[in-house]
Amino acid sequence: MHEFDTAMQLRDEGDGTWSGAFHDDWAIGNAINGGVVMALGLTALGRHLEADPAEANRHVDPVVISAYFMTASLGGACRVETQTLRCGRRLSTGQVSVVQEGPDGAPVERMRALASFGNLDTVDTTRQSDPPDLPPPDQCLSSDLAPPDFLNHSAFLDRVDLRLDPDTAGWAMGRPSMRGVMQGWLRLKDGREPDSTMLLWALDAFPPVAFDLGIYGWAPTLEFTGHVRRRPEPGWLRVVISSDTLTGELMEEDARIWDSAGHLVAQSRQLCSVRTQPTG
Amino acid sequence: MHEFDTAMQLRDEGDGTWSGAFHDDWAIGNAINGGVVMALGLTALGRHLEADPAEANRHVDPVVISAYFMTASLGGACRVETQTLRCGRRLSTGQVSVVQEGPDGAPVERMRALASFGNLDTVDTTRQSDPPDLPPPDQCLSSDLAPPDFLNHSAFLDRVDLRLDPDTAGWAMGRPSMRGVMQGWLRLKDGREPDSTMLLWALDAFPPVAFDLGIYGWAPTLEFTGHVRRRPEPGWLRVVISSDTLTGELMEEDARIWDSAGHLVAQSRQLCSVRTQPTG
Repeated sequence: MHEFDTAMQLRDEGDGTWSGAFHDDWAIGNAINGGVVMALGLTALGRHLEADPAEANRHVDPVVISAYFMTASLGGACRVETQTLRCGRRLSTGQVSVVQEGPDGAPVERMRALASFGNLDTVDTTRQSDPPDLPPPDQCLSSDLAPPDFLNHSAFLDRVDLRLDPDTAGWAMGRPSMRGVMQGWLRLKDGREPDSTMLLWALDAFPPVAFDLGIYGWAPTLEFTGHVRRRPEPGWLRVVISSDTLTGELMEEDARIWDSAGHLVAQSRQLCSVRTQPTG
Repeated sequence: MHEFDTAMQLRDEGDGTWSGAFHDDWAIGNAINGGVVMALGLTALGRHLEADPAEANRHVDPVVISAYFMTASLGGACRVETQTLRCGRRLSTGQVSVVQEGPDGAPVERMRALASFGNLDTVDTTRQSDPPDLPPPDQCLSSDLAPPDFLNHSAFLDRVDLRLDPDTAGWAMGRPSMRGVMQGWLRLKDGREPDSTMLLWALDAFPPVAFDLGIYGWAPTLEFTGHVRRRPEPGWLRVVISSDTLTGELMEEDARIWDSAGHLVAQSRQLCSVRTQPTG
Protein backbone atom coordinates (compact mmCIF):
# COMPACT_ATOMS: atom_id res chain seq x y z
CA MET A 1 0.00 0.00 0.00
CA HIS A 2 1.24 3.50 -0.86
CA GLU A 3 2.09 5.93 1.96
CA PHE A 4 -0.75 8.31 1.09
CA ASP A 5 -3.32 5.51 1.24
CA THR A 6 -1.90 4.29 4.56
CA ALA A 7 -2.39 7.80 5.93
CA MET A 8 -6.02 7.74 4.74
CA GLN A 9 -6.97 4.56 6.64
CA LEU A 10 -10.08 4.86 8.76
CA ARG A 11 -12.10 2.59 10.99
CA ASP A 12 -15.88 2.97 10.90
CA GLU A 13 -17.07 3.53 14.48
CA GLY A 14 -20.73 3.91 13.42
CA ASP A 15 -23.07 6.92 13.42
CA GLY A 16 -20.82 8.89 11.06
CA THR A 17 -17.79 8.65 13.36
CA TRP A 18 -14.46 7.36 12.08
CA SER A 19 -11.14 6.78 13.80
CA GLY A 20 -7.79 7.35 12.14
CA ALA A 21 -4.26 8.39 12.98
CA PHE A 22 -1.77 11.03 11.91
CA HIS A 23 1.77 9.76 11.46
CA ASP A 24 4.74 12.05 12.06
CA ASP A 25 5.91 11.02 8.58
CA TRP A 26 3.56 13.75 7.36
CA ALA A 27 4.73 16.42 9.82
CA ILE A 28 6.29 19.78 9.00
CA GLY A 29 7.97 20.81 12.22
CA ASN A 30 5.66 19.49 14.94
CA ALA A 31 2.41 19.93 13.03
CA ILE A 32 0.82 17.52 10.59
CA ASN A 33 0.55 18.99 7.07
CA GLY A 34 -2.89 20.59 6.65
CA GLY A 35 -3.40 18.90 3.28
CA VAL A 36 -3.22 15.50 4.97
CA VAL A 37 -5.77 16.59 7.59
CA MET A 38 -8.14 17.76 4.84
CA ALA A 39 -7.63 14.63 2.74
CA LEU A 40 -8.39 12.38 5.73
CA GLY A 41 -11.53 14.38 6.51
CA LEU A 42 -12.62 14.14 2.85
CA THR A 43 -11.98 10.41 2.77
CA ALA A 44 -14.22 9.91 5.80
CA LEU A 45 -16.93 12.18 4.42
CA GLY A 46 -16.83 10.45 1.04
CA ARG A 47 -17.32 7.05 2.68
CA HIS A 48 -20.13 8.43 4.84
CA LEU A 49 -21.95 9.91 1.83
CA GLU A 50 -21.56 6.66 -0.14
CA ALA A 51 -23.58 4.88 2.53
CA ASP A 52 -26.41 7.37 1.93
CA PRO A 53 -29.10 7.34 -0.81
CA ALA A 54 -28.62 6.17 -4.38
CA GLU A 55 -27.52 9.54 -5.80
CA ALA A 56 -24.68 9.91 -3.32
CA ASN A 57 -23.38 6.50 -4.36
CA ARG A 58 -22.32 8.01 -7.67
CA HIS A 59 -20.77 11.07 -6.02
CA VAL A 60 -17.29 9.61 -5.58
CA ASP A 61 -15.21 12.74 -6.34
CA PRO A 62 -14.70 15.61 -3.91
CA VAL A 63 -15.54 18.69 -6.01
CA VAL A 64 -15.20 21.48 -3.46
CA ILE A 65 -14.03 21.73 0.16
CA SER A 66 -13.81 24.69 2.52
CA ALA A 67 -11.74 23.93 5.60
CA TYR A 68 -11.17 26.05 8.71
CA PHE A 69 -8.07 25.17 10.72
CA MET A 70 -8.52 25.95 14.39
CA THR A 71 -5.56 24.21 16.07
CA ALA A 72 -2.50 22.38 14.73
CA SER A 73 -2.89 18.61 14.27
CA LEU A 74 -0.26 16.44 15.98
CA GLY A 75 0.98 12.91 15.37
CA GLY A 76 -1.35 10.36 16.97
CA ALA A 77 -4.93 9.17 16.99
CA CYS A 78 -7.76 11.31 15.67
CA ARG A 79 -11.52 11.08 15.44
CA VAL A 80 -13.41 12.21 12.33
CA GLU A 81 -17.10 13.17 12.64
CA THR A 82 -19.12 13.28 9.42
CA GLN A 83 -22.62 14.50 8.66
CA THR A 84 -24.72 14.49 5.48
CA LEU A 85 -26.36 17.85 4.76
CA ARG A 86 -27.98 17.22 1.38
CA CYS A 87 -27.91 14.57 -1.32
CA GLY A 88 -28.90 16.19 -4.63
CA ARG A 89 -28.88 15.00 -8.20
CA ARG A 90 -25.61 16.68 -9.08
CA LEU A 91 -23.85 17.06 -5.72
CA SER A 92 -23.93 15.63 -2.22
CA THR A 93 -22.90 18.03 0.53
CA GLY A 94 -21.66 17.24 4.01
CA GLN A 95 -19.73 18.45 6.99
CA VAL A 96 -16.67 16.96 8.61
CA SER A 97 -14.76 17.67 11.79
CA VAL A 98 -11.34 16.32 12.83
CA VAL A 99 -10.79 16.07 16.58
CA GLN A 100 -7.83 15.00 18.73
CA GLU A 101 -7.43 14.64 22.45
CA GLY A 102 -5.81 17.65 24.12
CA PRO A 103 -3.16 17.41 26.88
CA ASP A 104 -5.91 17.28 29.53
CA GLY A 105 -7.79 14.53 27.70
CA ALA A 106 -10.54 16.87 26.48
CA PRO A 107 -11.38 16.81 22.75
CA VAL A 108 -9.85 19.63 20.70
CA GLU A 109 -11.20 20.39 17.23
CA ARG A 110 -8.40 20.65 14.65
CA MET A 111 -10.35 21.36 11.48
CA ARG A 112 -13.95 21.75 10.43
CA ALA A 113 -14.94 21.64 6.78
CA LEU A 114 -17.92 21.76 4.47
CA ALA A 115 -17.56 19.86 1.21
CA SER A 116 -19.53 18.71 -1.82
CA PHE A 117 -18.97 15.51 -3.75
CA GLY A 118 -19.97 14.84 -7.34
CA ASN A 119 -19.00 12.67 -10.27
CA LEU A 120 -16.14 13.83 -12.51
CA ASP A 121 -16.11 10.71 -14.69
CA THR A 122 -16.78 12.49 -17.99
CA VAL A 123 -15.88 16.16 -17.80
CA ASP A 124 -14.99 18.27 -20.83
CA THR A 125 -12.85 21.36 -20.47
CA THR A 126 -14.41 24.29 -22.34
CA ARG A 127 -12.07 27.00 -21.01
CA GLN A 128 -8.92 27.00 -18.88
CA SER A 129 -5.71 28.94 -18.35
CA ASP A 130 -2.56 27.51 -19.91
CA PRO A 131 -0.19 25.40 -17.85
CA PRO A 132 3.06 27.17 -16.92
CA ASP A 133 6.11 26.81 -19.08
CA LEU A 134 8.52 24.87 -16.84
CA PRO A 135 12.02 23.45 -17.38
CA PRO A 136 11.92 19.63 -17.24
CA PRO A 137 11.89 18.17 -13.70
CA ASP A 138 15.60 17.21 -13.82
CA GLN A 139 16.49 20.87 -14.51
CA CYS A 140 14.44 22.11 -11.53
CA LEU A 141 15.47 22.39 -7.89
CA SER A 142 14.60 19.33 -5.86
CA SER A 143 13.47 19.66 -2.24
CA ASP A 144 16.14 17.01 -1.53
CA LEU A 145 18.60 19.90 -1.88
CA ALA A 146 17.17 21.73 1.16
CA PRO A 147 19.59 22.12 4.10
CA PRO A 148 19.81 18.86 6.16
CA ASP A 149 18.79 20.82 9.24
CA PHE A 150 15.55 21.75 7.49
CA LEU A 151 14.95 18.26 6.09
CA ASN A 152 15.36 16.75 9.58
CA HIS A 153 12.43 18.83 10.75
CA SER A 154 10.23 18.14 7.79
CA ALA A 155 9.47 14.44 7.41
CA PHE A 156 6.80 15.61 4.95
CA LEU A 157 9.50 16.37 2.37
CA ASP A 158 10.49 12.68 2.35
CA ARG A 159 7.01 11.83 1.05
CA VAL A 160 6.97 14.24 -1.88
CA ASP A 161 9.01 14.81 -4.99
CA LEU A 162 8.85 18.56 -5.45
CA ARG A 163 10.86 20.33 -8.19
CA LEU A 164 10.87 24.11 -8.16
CA ASP A 165 11.41 26.16 -11.31
CA PRO A 166 14.80 27.83 -10.59
CA ASP A 167 13.26 31.14 -11.78
CA THR A 168 10.92 31.11 -8.77
CA ALA A 169 13.28 29.52 -6.22
CA GLY A 170 15.56 32.50 -5.50
CA TRP A 171 14.08 32.71 -1.99
CA ALA A 172 15.86 29.42 -1.15
CA MET A 173 19.16 31.26 -1.67
CA GLY A 174 17.99 34.36 0.21
CA ARG A 175 16.97 36.19 -2.98
CA PRO A 176 13.15 36.19 -3.05
CA SER A 177 11.79 37.61 -6.32
CA MET A 178 9.23 39.70 -4.37
CA ARG A 179 6.68 38.87 -7.10
CA GLY A 180 4.77 36.41 -4.90
CA VAL A 181 4.92 33.47 -7.31
CA MET A 182 6.28 29.92 -7.12
CA GLN A 183 5.93 27.12 -9.66
CA GLY A 184 7.17 23.62 -10.27
CA TRP A 185 6.47 19.92 -10.51
CA LEU A 186 4.93 17.67 -7.85
CA ARG A 187 4.35 13.97 -7.34
CA LEU A 188 4.33 11.51 -4.48
CA LYS A 189 7.77 9.99 -4.03
CA ASP A 190 6.57 6.39 -3.81
CA GLY A 191 4.86 6.51 -7.20
CA ARG A 192 1.26 6.81 -5.95
CA GLU A 193 -0.63 8.42 -8.84
CA PRO A 194 -2.91 11.44 -8.32
CA ASP A 195 -6.68 11.18 -7.94
CA SER A 196 -9.32 13.73 -7.01
CA THR A 197 -8.72 13.48 -3.23
CA MET A 198 -4.94 13.60 -3.65
CA LEU A 199 -5.33 16.81 -5.71
CA LEU A 200 -6.85 18.62 -2.75
CA TRP A 201 -3.85 17.55 -0.70
CA ALA A 202 -1.50 18.67 -3.50
CA LEU A 203 -2.99 22.19 -3.53
CA ASP A 204 -1.38 22.77 -0.12
CA ALA A 205 1.89 20.84 -0.60
CA PHE A 206 4.21 23.63 -1.80
CA PRO A 207 6.24 25.85 0.55
CA PRO A 208 4.34 29.03 1.52
CA VAL A 209 4.34 31.57 -1.34
CA ALA A 210 5.18 34.14 1.36
CA PHE A 211 8.79 32.87 1.09
CA ASP A 212 8.96 34.55 -2.34
CA LEU A 213 8.07 37.83 -0.60
CA GLY A 214 10.94 37.40 1.86
CA ILE A 215 8.59 36.36 4.67
CA TYR A 216 10.20 33.17 5.91
CA GLY A 217 8.24 32.19 9.03
CA TRP A 218 5.52 29.61 9.31
CA ALA A 219 2.38 30.75 7.41
CA PRO A 220 -0.48 28.83 9.04
CA THR A 221 -3.60 28.32 6.94
CA LEU A 222 -6.70 29.82 8.54
CA GLU A 223 -9.14 28.92 5.77
CA PHE A 224 -8.65 26.87 2.61
CA THR A 225 -11.10 26.37 -0.25
CA GLY A 226 -10.22 24.03 -3.10
CA HIS A 227 -12.08 23.02 -6.26
CA VAL A 228 -11.36 19.83 -8.20
CA ARG A 229 -12.26 20.44 -11.87
CA ARG A 230 -11.30 17.12 -13.51
CA ARG A 231 -9.88 13.73 -12.56
CA PRO A 232 -6.12 13.92 -13.18
CA GLU A 233 -4.17 11.76 -15.64
CA PRO A 234 -1.25 9.79 -14.12
CA GLY A 235 2.16 11.46 -13.91
CA TRP A 236 3.71 14.70 -12.74
CA LEU A 237 1.48 17.59 -11.65
CA ARG A 238 2.39 21.16 -12.61
CA VAL A 239 1.68 23.61 -9.78
CA VAL A 240 1.62 27.42 -9.69
CA ILE A 241 1.04 29.29 -6.43
CA SER A 242 0.71 33.05 -6.17
CA SER A 243 -0.44 35.92 -3.99
CA ASP A 244 -1.47 39.49 -4.85
CA THR A 245 -2.55 40.91 -1.53
CA LEU A 246 -0.99 41.39 1.90
CA THR A 247 -3.09 43.37 4.37
CA GLY A 248 -2.25 43.46 8.04
CA GLU A 249 -0.81 40.01 8.70
CA LEU A 250 -3.14 38.21 6.31
CA MET A 251 -2.48 37.09 2.76
CA GLU A 252 -4.27 34.95 0.23
CA GLU A 253 -2.43 32.13 -1.51
CA ASP A 254 -3.90 30.87 -4.80
CA ALA A 255 -2.87 27.52 -6.23
CA ARG A 256 -3.54 25.94 -9.62
CA ILE A 257 -2.67 22.43 -10.75
CA TRP A 258 -2.44 20.98 -14.28
CA ASP A 259 -2.10 17.26 -14.92
CA SER A 260 0.31 15.53 -17.34
CA ALA A 261 -2.20 15.99 -20.17
CA GLY A 262 -2.14 19.77 -19.61
CA HIS A 263 -5.65 20.00 -18.16
CA LEU A 264 -6.34 22.35 -15.30
CA VAL A 265 -7.52 19.85 -12.69
CA ALA A 266 -7.68 21.79 -9.42
CA GLN A 267 -7.48 25.30 -8.00
CA SER A 268 -7.59 26.78 -4.53
CA ARG A 269 -7.40 29.92 -2.48
CA GLN A 270 -6.37 30.01 1.14
CA LEU A 271 -6.20 32.80 3.69
CA CYS A 272 -3.06 32.50 5.76
CA SER A 273 -1.45 34.35 8.56
CA VAL A 274 2.09 35.68 8.22
CA ARG A 275 4.50 37.48 10.52
CA THR A 276 5.51 40.63 8.69
CA GLN A 277 7.33 42.09 11.69
CA PRO A 278 10.08 40.32 13.63
CA THR A 279 8.74 39.30 17.04
CA GLY A 280 10.64 40.16 20.22
CA MET B 1 -33.30 52.74 8.70
CA HIS B 2 -31.61 51.75 5.42
CA GLU B 3 -33.03 48.84 3.41
CA PHE B 4 -29.95 46.68 3.94
CA ASP B 5 -30.14 47.09 7.72
CA THR B 6 -33.85 46.31 7.70
CA ALA B 7 -33.04 43.07 5.87
CA MET B 8 -30.47 42.22 8.58
CA GLN B 9 -32.92 42.46 11.49
CA LEU B 10 -32.91 39.46 13.80
CA ARG B 11 -34.67 38.45 16.99
CA ASP B 12 -32.64 36.55 19.57
CA GLU B 13 -34.51 33.33 20.36
CA GLY B 14 -31.82 32.12 22.80
CA ASP B 15 -29.35 29.21 22.59
CA GLY B 16 -27.73 30.61 19.44
CA THR B 17 -31.00 30.64 17.48
CA TRP B 18 -32.20 33.78 15.72
CA SER B 19 -35.31 34.53 13.72
CA GLY B 20 -35.38 36.80 10.70
CA ALA B 21 -37.21 37.24 7.42
CA PHE B 22 -36.37 37.51 3.75
CA HIS B 23 -38.28 40.16 1.88
CA ASP B 24 -39.08 39.76 -1.82
CA ASP B 25 -37.49 43.19 -2.28
CA TRP B 26 -34.20 41.27 -2.40
CA ALA B 27 -35.38 38.57 -4.83
CA ILE B 28 -33.96 37.81 -8.25
CA GLY B 29 -36.71 35.85 -9.98
CA ASN B 30 -38.26 33.80 -7.17
CA ALA B 31 -35.09 33.32 -5.13
CA ILE B 32 -33.62 35.63 -2.53
CA ASN B 33 -30.18 36.92 -3.56
CA GLY B 34 -27.50 34.66 -2.04
CA GLY B 35 -25.50 37.65 -0.80
CA VAL B 36 -28.41 38.67 1.42
CA VAL B 37 -28.69 35.14 2.81
CA MET B 38 -24.96 35.14 3.63
CA ALA B 39 -25.05 38.63 5.14
CA LEU B 40 -27.98 37.69 7.40
CA GLY B 41 -26.15 34.54 8.51
CA LEU B 42 -23.01 36.57 9.22
CA THR B 43 -24.96 39.18 11.17
CA ALA B 44 -26.41 36.47 13.41
CA LEU B 45 -23.05 34.75 13.86
CA GLY B 46 -21.34 38.07 14.68
CA ARG B 47 -23.91 38.79 17.38
CA HIS B 48 -23.58 35.26 18.74
CA LEU B 49 -19.77 35.50 18.94
CA GLU B 50 -19.96 38.93 20.62
CA ALA B 51 -21.83 37.32 23.50
CA ASP B 52 -18.92 34.90 23.94
CA PRO B 53 -15.59 35.45 25.76
CA ALA B 54 -13.67 38.71 25.94
CA GLU B 55 -11.59 38.15 22.78
CA ALA B 56 -14.63 37.62 20.60
CA ASN B 57 -16.02 40.94 21.76
CA ARG B 58 -13.33 42.69 19.73
CA HIS B 59 -13.89 40.48 16.70
CA VAL B 60 -16.53 42.66 15.07
CA ASP B 61 -15.51 42.24 11.40
CA PRO B 62 -16.28 39.16 9.32
CA VAL B 63 -12.87 38.29 7.80
CA VAL B 64 -13.68 35.10 5.90
CA ILE B 65 -16.83 33.13 5.13
CA SER B 66 -17.37 29.90 3.19
CA ALA B 67 -21.01 29.29 2.36
CA TYR B 68 -22.64 26.24 0.77
CA PHE B 69 -26.02 26.88 -0.84
CA MET B 70 -28.22 23.80 -0.74
CA THR B 71 -31.66 25.10 -1.70
CA ALA B 72 -32.95 28.48 -2.91
CA SER B 73 -34.15 30.88 -0.19
CA LEU B 74 -37.67 32.27 -0.63
CA GLY B 75 -39.39 35.37 0.71
CA GLY B 76 -40.69 34.79 4.25
CA ALA B 77 -39.56 33.84 7.73
CA CYS B 78 -36.24 32.12 8.37
CA ARG B 79 -34.39 30.68 11.33
CA VAL B 80 -30.65 31.17 11.78
CA GLU B 81 -28.71 28.69 13.94
CA THR B 82 -25.28 29.82 15.16
CA GLN B 83 -22.49 27.96 16.94
CA THR B 84 -19.12 29.08 18.30
CA LEU B 85 -16.26 26.80 17.27
CA ARG B 86 -13.24 28.63 18.68
CA CYS B 87 -12.45 32.04 20.15
CA GLY B 88 -8.75 32.75 19.59
CA ARG B 89 -6.61 35.82 20.06
CA ARG B 90 -6.73 36.89 16.44
CA LEU B 91 -9.92 35.27 15.13
CA SER B 92 -13.16 33.80 16.38
CA THR B 93 -14.63 31.03 14.25
CA GLY B 94 -18.18 29.80 14.09
CA GLN B 95 -20.79 28.02 12.05
CA VAL B 96 -24.15 29.25 10.84
CA SER B 97 -27.10 27.63 9.18
CA VAL B 98 -30.10 29.32 7.57
CA VAL B 99 -33.30 27.28 7.60
CA GLN B 100 -36.81 27.87 6.22
CA GLU B 101 -39.98 25.85 6.43
CA GLY B 102 -40.60 23.67 3.37
CA PRO B 103 -44.04 23.24 1.73
CA ASP B 104 -44.81 20.31 4.08
CA GLY B 105 -43.81 22.31 7.17
CA ALA B 106 -40.52 20.43 7.62
CA PRO B 107 -37.35 22.53 8.02
CA VAL B 108 -35.22 22.87 4.87
CA GLU B 109 -31.63 24.05 5.14
CA ARG B 110 -30.90 26.88 2.67
CA MET B 111 -27.26 27.62 3.44
CA ARG B 112 -24.60 26.42 5.81
CA ALA B 113 -21.42 28.43 6.35
CA LEU B 114 -18.23 28.50 8.35
CA ALA B 115 -16.81 31.93 9.08
CA SER B 116 -14.12 33.71 11.09
CA PHE B 117 -14.41 37.16 12.62
CA GLY B 118 -11.53 39.46 13.54
CA ASN B 119 -10.78 43.12 14.01
CA LEU B 120 -9.91 45.18 10.94
CA ASP B 121 -9.72 48.51 12.79
CA THR B 122 -6.10 49.28 11.89
CA VAL B 123 -4.98 47.37 8.83
CA ASP B 124 -2.15 48.48 6.56
CA THR B 125 -2.03 47.36 2.94
CA THR B 126 1.47 46.12 2.07
CA ARG B 127 0.60 44.69 -1.36
CA GLN B 128 -2.47 44.73 -3.58
CA SER B 129 -3.49 44.69 -7.24
CA ASP B 130 -4.46 48.01 -8.78
CA PRO B 131 -8.11 49.02 -9.03
CA PRO B 132 -9.53 48.84 -12.57
CA ASP B 133 -9.50 51.86 -14.81
CA LEU B 134 -13.22 52.67 -15.19
CA PRO B 135 -15.12 55.47 -16.93
CA PRO B 136 -16.93 57.64 -14.35
CA PRO B 137 -20.25 56.19 -13.11
CA ASP B 138 -22.34 58.55 -15.29
CA GLN B 139 -20.57 57.20 -18.40
CA CYS B 140 -21.28 53.58 -17.44
CA LEU B 141 -24.38 51.48 -18.14
CA SER B 142 -26.90 51.59 -15.32
CA SER B 143 -28.93 48.52 -14.42
CA ASP B 144 -31.95 50.85 -14.66
CA LEU B 145 -31.51 50.46 -18.43
CA ALA B 146 -32.28 46.72 -18.31
CA PRO B 147 -35.43 45.64 -20.18
CA PRO B 148 -38.59 46.36 -18.08
CA ASP B 149 -39.52 42.69 -18.35
CA PHE B 150 -36.25 41.81 -16.63
CA LEU B 151 -36.53 44.56 -14.02
CA ASN B 152 -40.04 43.39 -13.12
CA HIS B 153 -38.59 40.02 -12.14
CA SER B 154 -35.65 41.38 -10.25
CA ALA B 155 -36.71 43.52 -7.29
CA PHE B 156 -33.07 43.21 -6.22
CA LEU B 157 -32.05 45.68 -8.95
CA ASP B 158 -34.19 48.35 -7.28
CA ARG B 159 -31.97 48.12 -4.20
CA VAL B 160 -28.62 48.56 -5.96
CA ASP B 161 -26.98 51.19 -8.10
CA LEU B 162 -24.86 49.17 -10.47
CA ARG B 163 -22.94 50.82 -13.34
CA LEU B 164 -21.22 48.53 -15.81
CA ASP B 165 -18.18 49.59 -17.79
CA PRO B 166 -19.53 49.67 -21.39
CA ASP B 167 -16.40 47.75 -22.47
CA THR B 168 -17.58 44.74 -20.46
CA ALA B 169 -21.32 45.10 -21.01
CA GLY B 170 -21.57 43.90 -24.62
CA TRP B 171 -23.42 40.79 -23.39
CA ALA B 172 -26.40 43.02 -22.52
CA MET B 173 -26.73 43.77 -26.25
CA GLY B 174 -26.16 40.12 -27.25
CA ARG B 175 -22.44 40.65 -27.92
CA PRO B 176 -20.60 38.96 -25.04
CA SER B 177 -16.85 39.61 -25.18
CA MET B 178 -16.15 35.91 -24.47
CA ARG B 179 -13.28 37.03 -22.22
CA GLY B 180 -15.15 36.20 -18.99
CA VAL B 181 -14.76 39.62 -17.38
CA MET B 182 -17.17 42.24 -16.08
CA GLN B 183 -16.38 45.44 -14.17
CA GLY B 184 -18.11 48.50 -12.86
CA TRP B 185 -19.30 50.57 -9.93
CA LEU B 186 -21.60 49.48 -7.12
CA ARG B 187 -23.39 51.11 -4.22
CA LEU B 188 -26.69 50.70 -2.39
CA LYS B 189 -29.34 52.90 -3.96
CA ASP B 190 -30.59 54.38 -0.68
CA GLY B 191 -27.16 55.72 0.28
CA ARG B 192 -26.28 53.09 2.89
CA GLU B 193 -22.47 53.14 3.05
CA PRO B 194 -20.41 49.94 2.82
CA ASP B 195 -19.03 48.14 5.87
CA SER B 196 -17.32 44.78 6.26
CA THR B 197 -20.57 42.74 6.26
CA MET B 198 -21.99 44.68 3.30
CA LEU B 199 -18.78 43.92 1.34
CA LEU B 200 -19.46 40.19 1.54
CA TRP B 201 -22.91 40.88 0.12
CA ALA B 202 -21.40 43.10 -2.60
CA LEU B 203 -19.06 40.31 -3.78
CA ASP B 204 -22.11 38.47 -5.11
CA ALA B 205 -24.18 41.43 -6.34
CA PHE B 206 -23.08 41.61 -10.01
CA PRO B 207 -24.79 39.68 -12.82
CA PRO B 208 -23.16 36.27 -13.39
CA VAL B 209 -19.85 36.59 -15.26
CA ALA B 210 -21.11 33.67 -17.36
CA PHE B 211 -23.18 36.26 -19.28
CA ASP B 212 -19.92 37.57 -20.76
CA LEU B 213 -19.29 34.05 -22.11
CA GLY B 214 -22.70 34.02 -23.81
CA ILE B 215 -24.17 31.72 -21.15
CA TYR B 216 -27.34 33.58 -20.19
CA GLY B 217 -29.21 31.21 -17.86
CA TRP B 218 -29.33 31.32 -14.09
CA ALA B 219 -25.91 30.46 -12.59
CA PRO B 220 -26.66 29.25 -9.07
CA THR B 221 -23.84 29.50 -6.54
CA LEU B 222 -22.90 26.13 -5.06
CA GLU B 223 -20.08 27.37 -2.85
CA PHE B 224 -18.87 30.89 -2.11
CA THR B 225 -15.79 31.95 -0.15
CA GLY B 226 -15.13 35.62 0.51
CA HIS B 227 -12.32 37.44 2.33
CA VAL B 228 -12.66 40.96 3.75
CA ARG B 229 -9.22 42.57 3.74
CA ARG B 230 -9.94 46.08 5.06
CA ARG B 231 -12.87 48.15 6.28
CA PRO B 232 -14.10 50.18 3.28
CA GLU B 233 -14.15 53.96 3.04
CA PRO B 234 -17.57 55.49 2.24
CA GLY B 235 -18.56 55.91 -1.40
CA TRP B 236 -18.70 53.91 -4.60
CA LEU B 237 -17.16 50.42 -4.73
CA ARG B 238 -15.23 49.32 -7.83
CA VAL B 239 -15.90 45.66 -8.67
CA VAL B 240 -14.19 43.29 -11.11
CA ILE B 241 -15.50 39.77 -11.65
CA SER B 242 -13.83 37.19 -13.87
CA SER B 243 -13.60 33.51 -14.69
CA ASP B 244 -10.84 31.45 -16.32
CA THR B 245 -12.19 27.94 -16.18
CA LEU B 246 -15.28 26.13 -17.42
CA THR B 247 -15.26 22.35 -16.95
CA GLY B 248 -18.37 20.27 -17.38
CA GLU B 249 -21.13 22.59 -16.15
CA LEU B 250 -19.05 24.17 -13.39
CA MET B 251 -17.21 27.46 -13.42
CA GLU B 252 -15.44 29.59 -10.85
CA GLU B 253 -16.27 33.28 -10.53
CA ASP B 254 -13.69 35.50 -8.85
CA ALA B 255 -14.63 38.94 -7.54
CA ARG B 256 -12.49 41.78 -6.25
CA ILE B 257 -13.65 45.03 -4.71
CA TRP B 258 -11.77 48.31 -4.19
CA ASP B 259 -13.16 51.14 -2.07
CA SER B 260 -13.27 54.86 -2.94
CA ALA B 261 -9.74 55.27 -1.55
CA GLY B 262 -8.44 52.67 -4.02
CA HIS B 263 -7.78 49.97 -1.41
CA LEU B 264 -8.53 46.36 -2.22
CA VAL B 265 -11.10 45.64 0.50
CA ALA B 266 -12.58 42.25 -0.41
CA GLN B 267 -12.15 39.30 -2.74
CA SER B 268 -14.03 36.09 -3.37
CA ARG B 269 -14.24 32.96 -5.43
CA GLN B 270 -17.39 31.00 -5.99
CA LEU B 271 -18.12 27.74 -7.75
CA CYS B 272 -21.29 28.01 -9.76
CA SER B 273 -23.31 25.79 -11.98
CA VAL B 274 -24.11 26.83 -15.55
CA ARG B 275 -26.14 25.34 -18.36
CA THR B 276 -23.80 25.10 -21.33
CA GLN B 277 -26.24 23.06 -23.43
CA PRO B 278 -29.79 24.12 -24.24
CA THR B 279 -32.24 21.96 -22.29
CA GLY B 280 -35.16 20.28 -24.03
